[in-house]
Amino acid sequence: MLSDFRGEVWINVHSEILKAMEEINDEPLDGGYGDDVYAKRATALMQANFDEEIFTTFAINGTAANVMALKAMLDRFSAVLCAKQTHVNTYEAGALEFNLGNKILTVDSPDGKLTPALLDELLCGVQNYKYVPKVVSLAQPTEYGTLYTRAELKTVCDYAHDKGMYVYLDGARLPNAIAAQKTDLRHMIGETGVDAFSFGGTKAGAMFGEMVIFRRAEFARCLKYSQKQSMQHMSKSKFLSVQIWKILERELWLKNAELSNAAALLLEARLRERGIKTAYKVESNMVFAVIDRETFERITKVYDLHYWDEKREVVRLAATYLTTESQINQFVTMF
Amino acid sequence: MLSDFRGEVWINVHSEILKAMEEINDEPLDGGYGDDVYAKRATALMQANFDEEIFTTFAINGTAANVMALKAMLDRFSAVLCAKQTHVNTYEAGALEFNLGNKILTVDSPDGKLTPALLDELLCGVQNYKYVPKVVSLAQPTEYGTLYTRAELKTVCDYAHDKGMYVYLDGARLPNAIAAQKTDLRHMIGETGVDAFSFGGTKAGAMFGEMVIFRRAEFARCLKYSQKQSMQHMSKSKFLSVQIWKILERELWLKNAELSNAAALLLEARLRERGIKTAYKVESNMVFAVIDRETFERITKVYDLHYWDEKREVVRLAATYLTTESQINQFVTMF
Amino acid sequence: MLSDFRGEVWINVHSEILKAMEEINDEPLDGGYGDDVYAKRATALMQANFDEEIFTTFAINGTAANVMALKAMLDRFSAVLCAKQTHVNTYEAGALEFNLGNKILTVDSPDGKLTPALLDELLCGVQNYKYVPKVVSLAQPTEYGTLYTRAELKTVCDYAHDKGMYVYLDGARLPNAIAAQKTDLRHMIGETGVDAFSFGGTKAGAMFGEMVIFRRAEFARCLKYSQKQSMQHMSKSKFLSVQIWKILERELWLKNAELSNAAALLLEARLRERGIKTAYKVESNMVFAVIDRETFERITKVYDLHYWDEKREVVRLAATYLTTESQINQFVTMF
Amino acid sequence: MLSDFRGEVWINVHSEILKAMEEINDEPLDGGYGDDVYAKRATALMQANFDEEIFTTFAINGTAANVMALKAMLDRFSAVLCAKQTHVNTYEAGALEFNLGNKILTVDSPDGKLTPALLDELLCGVQNYKYVPKVVSLAQPTEYGTLYTRAELKTVCDYAHDKGMYVYLDGARLPNAIAAQKTDLRHMIGETGVDAFSFGGTKAGAMFGEMVIFRRAEFARCLKYSQKQSMQHMSKSKFLSVQIWKILERELWLKNAELSNAAALLLEARLRERGIKTAYKVESNMVFAVIDRETFERITKVYDLHYWDEKREVVRLAATYLTTESQINQFVTMF
Repeated sequence: MLSDFRGEVWINVHSEILKAMEEINDEPLDGGYGDDVYAKRATALMQANFDEEIFTTFAINGTAANVMALKAMLDRFSAVLCAKQTHVNTYEAGALEFNLGNKILTVDSPDGKLTPALLDELLCGVQNYKYVPKVVSLAQPTEYGTLYTRAELKTVCDYAHDKGMYVYLDGARLPNAIAAQKTDLRHMIGETGVDAFSFGGTKAGAMFGEMVIFRRAEFARCLKYSQKQSMQHMSKSKFLSVQIWKILERELWLKNAELSNAAALLLEARLRERGIKTAYKVESNMVFAVIDRETFERITKVYDLHYWDEKREVVRLAATYLTTESQINQFVTMF
Repeated sequence: MLSDFRGEVWINVHSEILKAMEEINDEPLDGGYGDDVYAKRATALMQANFDEEIFTTFAINGTAANVMALKAMLDRFSAVLCAKQTHVNTYEAGALEFNLGNKILTVDSPDGKLTPALLDELLCGVQNYKYVPKVVSLAQPTEYGTLYTRAELKTVCDYAHDKGMYVYLDGARLPNAIAAQKTDLRHMIGETGVDAFSFGGTKAGAMFGEMVIFRRAEFARCLKYSQKQSMQHMSKSKFLSVQIWKILERELWLKNAELSNAAALLLEARLRERGIKTAYKVESNMVFAVIDRETFERITKVYDLHYWDEKREVVRLAATYLTTESQINQFVTMF
Repeated sequence: MLSDFRGEVWINVHSEILKAMEEINDEPLDGGYGDDVYAKRATALMQANFDEEIFTTFAINGTAANVMALKAMLDRFSAVLCAKQTHVNTYEAGALEFNLGNKILTVDSPDGKLTPALLDELLCGVQNYKYVPKVVSLAQPTEYGTLYTRAELKTVCDYAHDKGMYVYLDGARLPNAIAAQKTDLRHMIGETGVDAFSFGGTKAGAMFGEMVIFRRAEFARCLKYSQKQSMQHMSKSKFLSVQIWKILERELWLKNAELSNAAALLLEARLRERGIKTAYKVESNMVFAVIDRETFERITKVYDLHYWDEKREVVRLAATYLTTESQINQFVTMF
Repeated sequence: MLSDFRGEVWINVHSEILKAMEEINDEPLDGGYGDDVYAKRATALMQANFDEEIFTTFAINGTAANVMALKAMLDRFSAVLCAKQTHVNTYEAGALEFNLGNKILTVDSPDGKLTPALLDELLCGVQNYKYVPKVVSLAQPTEYGTLYTRAELKTVCDYAHDKGMYVYLDGARLPNAIAAQKTDLRHMIGETGVDAFSFGGTKAGAMFGEMVIFRRAEFARCLKYSQKQSMQHMSKSKFLSVQIWKILERELWLKNAELSNAAALLLEARLRERGIKTAYKVESNMVFAVIDRETFERITKVYDLHYWDEKREVVRLAATYLTTESQINQFVTMF
């Protein structure tokens, strides 16, 4: 079975990252439990994108990054607002509710993006139910691979701030968004008003590891303790942070995202030639192809894929930085 | 401000119930912490409706009854399925998530009722997300005041059991459903397959207090301990259980429900005469009247009411056993 | 079986309180869900003891009062410090851990009281474990019936504040402490620096109900929402708050505490005449009598009592405002 | 600063383990999310020690392994019993309470070990408090480096089973215990009756990673889902499981434990020659040396060490498989 388009978590560790992990194995372990020099270096590289002081913590996986961020931002009694289709509400095994106990309030979104109108609709009901909304959580790209423009992000942030709320951005694939829009962290995050975000290492080529970045000191209380309490610390922590550092230092996040975005556009073009449509606009590295059941049965004899939305016959195809033109050409011959 | 139609929680304690509470104040306190004789008597009266052994616990309010029931039925890792509009997902301040940490999986329902088709849709997505659905939670009447017929209830129960799930029924207003369908607990609960349910005292005239009934021994482990752990025990517990006992023993639940249901039908008829439509079929004691904004402004100068659904201009009017024809007549003159 | 000395939760509702509950049943229900006039009146009477603005919430039982208070005071990641024997750590079914998830850090105390030396010992270990201590929780009287003098209370409060912590006082039996020391709330709470406390209704003669008082605005965020989230709201809330109001307004708390304290002293004297010793100094309404096993077997044929500390053969005897001299005389004939 | 004796988490990754991680980077990723071939191989190697079927899951760190194991074993309402000094109660940032909400019931133990007498004492109080004890949690070696003999382990297991409880063994350093007693998993775990245990990779030379082993099917429900819910899954999971597999396959756990145990005995002998006593019997790789404050100040100018028990002037010295005789000789010259 070929797993070519199953997603970025189906490829191995980027060689430069693995090499960095090997190299530091000869250096003495300094400051385990998150105090290591690579955590500091990674934070310094991230800091360079922001004028105000940032505060960081690290998590093993994307679910944990979302939980760690929202743990710091939500009061016990406050609720998080998101699109119904967002990862934190769908693919995370209820980790937010289980680990934090907070309520997730959701609204359906046709393209996975939140807008003031959708948030109005959500808050209108919330007022009735007497919830205490505190954080708007969005993903960039969204679960549908679509992108907020910087203007759209700013609009949502302004809306949230006007209502006394904060914005968290799930950035498990943030590099793809930045590469696609030919912008940078300063413009996409710093200038739009996002209050906290995650920066995904795993999908950028790491073995594991995500960084969580807070742009407000009030969210950064007791982060080390909180990390341990939420079972995210590593005693030999440098092996996590060196990965994030290497990704930032060598700009692997950008290079890899450019490659995977380009591959997705090529895949979409080739599919279109075969008459295959997509359910959502292809704006990052994901192609949501509408594949009828007969074709699906034929393809899945060779490729390890499943229906992402069975009712609408949609299959998610994710390109990676390793996806080649010949893989794409071979795949589309199936149609 | 008149609060005539705001709901059953806006009326005082039924005189027979209050009298019962007074009378037992001279009896010695026996078995506090839930072992009292009135808890046993109330359970015995409830038991008479069922062939299999039942197990009961008591809670202060409806939110707590739902949490106590689902606490006993859900594993840490399992999820509850319900209509998006159900009380446990909307009006309970996120108590389920906060107190239990379980995920609520929801599906939109046009009339507030769950059906196999809606559950299929919900489970289809769930399978993808890899949740572990365990309990279907429904309310009878629903949040819209609509009723499941016994056949519909049985269909949902059969569906759930076929898939290895259980059914919990939120019965905060169960008496209204039973009265409206001229049936009884044996037929509505016992013969449809509902695995656990709550029986609401507060809306039936009590000062406070709900009974939770389990029809399976596996859900009845350590109930007393669990009740204390969830802050629902009363050291002078007889004052809670005597209310439930009196409601059952004097059939106040049935008498009061018949009165409030009849009042709701009268209210609906009078409103119809004035050209006012309802958003949902009136099947219990609740009338969801569509009231345009201008009329709403005029009425709410006199009556303490609010939009239940602002977008659709729907106001919920709830009749009680004290609602009189003259109150209704006076109210409709506002239109 | 006689339950004469089992405790205050084994006596019925004080007649004045029950009468007040009856009387308000004719008044229209105003502002359910905690907004009722009696909640406001009770708060106003409590406010009269303090110069700074206070903030109150209400809970069904003592366990819930402790949980509600500490929920407001603790961050997710902070810990509460208490004597190992304190109610919140022993007799509350793990409600704090279950409902809040916070860590309780404990230290053994010979007389149930915390001191700077004991807290030093506790914090010394804590520093090592890297916990984040935030609240010192003490009970007045302690679980052993002993009392902090006002000077001792102030010392603990000063100690806590010096270290950036706060003090919560579990006042389920606070009236007994105030009556015993012939002082008042202003002197015992206001001038010692206690940051939040509970004021127990149940043990003072109520059917149920406790007040939680916060002396700092930062602990008073979203209290109504939090009350519902923790399943402590009553839709017909006036029936809870009228009890607290009546206890305050008629000074039942003081009168009843004076009676029960006096009865305890008489009981202790009579027991001493029979050669029975106490394990702790009798300072409120509890007598911890050392009763050898043979005598214990004889007594418990008539009285419903159990060993409070089986190893040391200690039985807790609690006097109430209804305890009579003849009950005491009859009891001591058993020795 | 030298960190020679700070502990096993202050050394890098064992070269064979790192090499294994590198080598599999060329193999296609099969079955991420815990289904990978190395997880299966590691489980098969562990299975070979047991007659009954075992069930495994994997966690990032020791805290998570304990939480994952106890999550599977404890009901919501049940409590875990352990020695006060055990890791799960002291050094894990309250992760058990925060993530699971269960109560930890503790008893002081002079040597860190639980015995029937200590458990009797604990349960005696527990009965009074009406807790529901379900799991006895012990560590082998204990937090003091002491060891249960196999007979002692069996006694505790028999005691627990007699009372309807189960036994969990925290095996973060289990290899040291097995090596010290020249026994094996079959004899120490299989034949003593331990119901579930963790097998530590990190302290045996891994970069990170622990295995949790359940010997009863009822604890193995939905382990994959539960792992994700508790934020312990890795999408590229083979890089965790290959470490555990390599440790088992090459018997690194045994070899490394033999080396570190021997180094600890040598260290103790050298310290004894200098008149330094230990607070506990040296039975594994940890030496708890009693070092007066003056000497401590001198040593900590060179070595990165801290008081483990400041009051008793005890410093924990942990040997690793890399600890050399010359490191030991150099260290003892400080005394």
